[in-house]
Amino acid sequence: MTNFTLSCPIPIDQYPNVLLAHGGGGKLMQQLLERMFLPTFGAAKSIPHDSAVLTLPRDKIAFTTDSYVINPLFFPGGDIGSLAIHGTVNDLAMSGARPLYLSVGFILEEGLPMETLWRIVQSMQQAAENAKVQIITGDTKVVDRGKGDGIFINTAGVGIVEHDLVIAPQTVQPGDIILLNGDLGRHGIAIMAVREGLEFETTIESDSAPLASVVLELIEAGVKIHCLRDLTRGGLSSTLNEIATSAKVTIHIDENVIPVREDVQGACEILGFDPLYVANEGRFVAFVPQESVDKALDILRSHDQQACIIGQVTGTSQAKMGLVTVQSKIGASRILDMLSGEQLPRIC
Amino acid sequence: MTNFTLSCPIPIDQYPNVLLAHGGGGKLMQQLLERMFLPTFGAAKSIPHDSAVLTLPRDKIAFTTDSYVINPLFFPGGDIGSLAIHGTVNDLAMSGARPLYLSVGFILEEGLPMETLWRIVQSMQQAAENAKVQIITGDTKVVDRGKGDGIFINTAGVGIVEHDLVIAPQTVQPGDIILLNGDLGRHGIAIMAVREGLEFETTIESDSAPLASVVLELIEAGVKIHCLRDLTRGGLSSTLNEIATSAKVTIHIDENVIPVREDVQGACEILGFDPLYVANEGRFVAFVPQESVDKALDILRSHDQQACIIGQVTGTSQAKMGLVTVQSKIGASRILDMLSGEQLPRIC
Repeated sequence: MTNFTLSCPIPIDQYPNVLLAHGGGGKLMQQLLERMFLPTFGAAKSIPHDSAVLTLPRDKIAFTTDSYVINPLFFPGGDIGSLAIHGTVNDLAMSGARPLYLSVGFILEEGLPMETLWRIVQSMQQAAENAKVQIITGDTKVVDRGKGDGIFINTAGVGIVEHDLVIAPQTVQPGDIILLNGDLGRHGIAIMAVREGLEFETTIESDSAPLASVVLELIEAGVKIHCLRDLTRGGLSSTLNEIATSAKVTIHIDENVIPVREDVQGACEILGFDPLYVANEGRFVAFVPQESVDKALDILRSHDQQACIIGQVTGTSQAKMGLVTVQSKIGASRILDMLSGEQLPRIC
Repeated sequence: MTNFTLSCPIPIDQYPNVLLAHGGGGKLMQQLLERMFLPTFGAAKSIPHDSAVLTLPRDKIAFTTDSYVINPLFFPGGDIGSLAIHGTVNDLAMSGARPLYLSVGFILEEGLPMETLWRIVQSMQQAAENAKVQIITGDTKVVDRGKGDGIFINTAGVGIVEHDLVIAPQTVQPGDIILLNGDLGRHGIAIMAVREGLEFETTIESDSAPLASVVLELIEAGVKIHCLRDLTRGGLSSTLNEIATSAKVTIHIDENVIPVREDVQGACEILGFDPLYVANEGRFVAFVPQESVDKALDILRSHDQQACIIGQVTGTSQAKMGLVTVQSKIGASRILDMLSGEQLPRIC
């Protein structure tokens, strides 16, 4: 594991902050690469070249990318570095792929404290080790002060697909059961609490986590997964609406069974949010046929006791609206629409 | 080919500028995806999912990433969109790979004119078609006004390696001949001319171009390529120093034979730049054994008449300094060092 007590490998007294030259292609950029990035990401022994060349054990791959612009950079339960690993690993996992390799692109703002960069880089490596992926290629750009916001990170990921399932919206069918792997809303509320200076009795920590291992367990156990989707921006409601539209189906869920922690629910009420729209970074829904439900639920619950059935696919539809309905806490059924505007900017 | 007369698919009267909600995971983000990105990038028929799943014709791949933060966004000979395609395609090509697939990550600043985004997106697609790559997965984030600079783009690329050459610094040997595929300095000077408001008799256009087809021709012709590297940030001098250090060799080049256009040379003198340090986006060096030189030069010259031999690998060395020497225009030999600081910020 990465040792977090390591001191910054760039001399802080000489370079306390990132300079434009750290992205300029010259000696300072080389120093950053050779002293910080390559040794930490475990690529110190390889000779840096324009791209990484690798031999994959399978020819069927998944490929994805995400940029991370979260504010603040550090929050309870994670930071922009761990998030940049989890988010991309999870996108690969949602295709049922085994994540193997990541690229990382840093966009640094001139003046970013070198120690901040170092903390983030170490966090990325620790998250990568936990998620069993390797960071194998990268790029660093520096923009002038006032033209960025500390640090933005892009990661792209390559994984291999080791099964013959088509895990995608078009596989979803009426009768499919919808499973959720844990409680909702912690990531979004953890971020908002920091931004708004809210204090709770216990700190609300982000649910940010890598999801590949639980997905691979489902596949290995023979669960006939029809679709998977993680509940990031727009939360559960946007995810279900996207899938319903793509799959041309109607969905009904029961709000009463969806686990939301009491403090998260309380914070949502204070802030005027609905937990069904709040972003998560370690939560996903699985659409599975009835026959696979018990097996799937056992596996999900071995990772998180709160995993549960939240609803099902009720029929087919060609409509554009009203595809997702929810049995609400007061008993009535209502349409669960997509998020219209911007609920929580820069949540990931 | 992409039709550049198409009008913006997002209603400009309603959304003249990018809003935070365009990155928020809700309806506006979906509109941007469904109306602009998916149809333009030719992915309109596929159902968007968290990652793209593909079957590769080979198991040996190259994987790379670059972020693009160039200022200004539009310049003679290109824009940030075409550059974001060429740069990543070229990194794959420098490993001798055939570029196939790209991801794109947009980081947009709130307030970016929608028409600007549309011009850039169309330019990306045209460049991708020219370079024979497909943009198959992507992500969009929006940061608040004043926390970005219009648009930053990350692209990551996957290519396949169809040969058994090890195209890398460690293959470089004493006696290798160094070839250059054209004139130096146009990209950097084109950017500086726009920034500084310099005017020349003829406009200096960037050399930004995709390099995969010429590299694949070299490989198909049986040229025993030892190393390739494109001459981006830090220019020719930084590239040669990096390779000399990695390969533990000494290199000698002749400045007198290096093609630099007269107007570029003049601009360099005015601005106090040395063309050997100026960034290019369509130039590379090839290290080849003597036996392959004629064949390689023929192919390079069929693409650009100015391609030439600029020097050779003269010996081995364990030193860290003085690895690259240059026969200068006044006849003396001098050490060609790496760029120390920042010559041209945000050149790519």
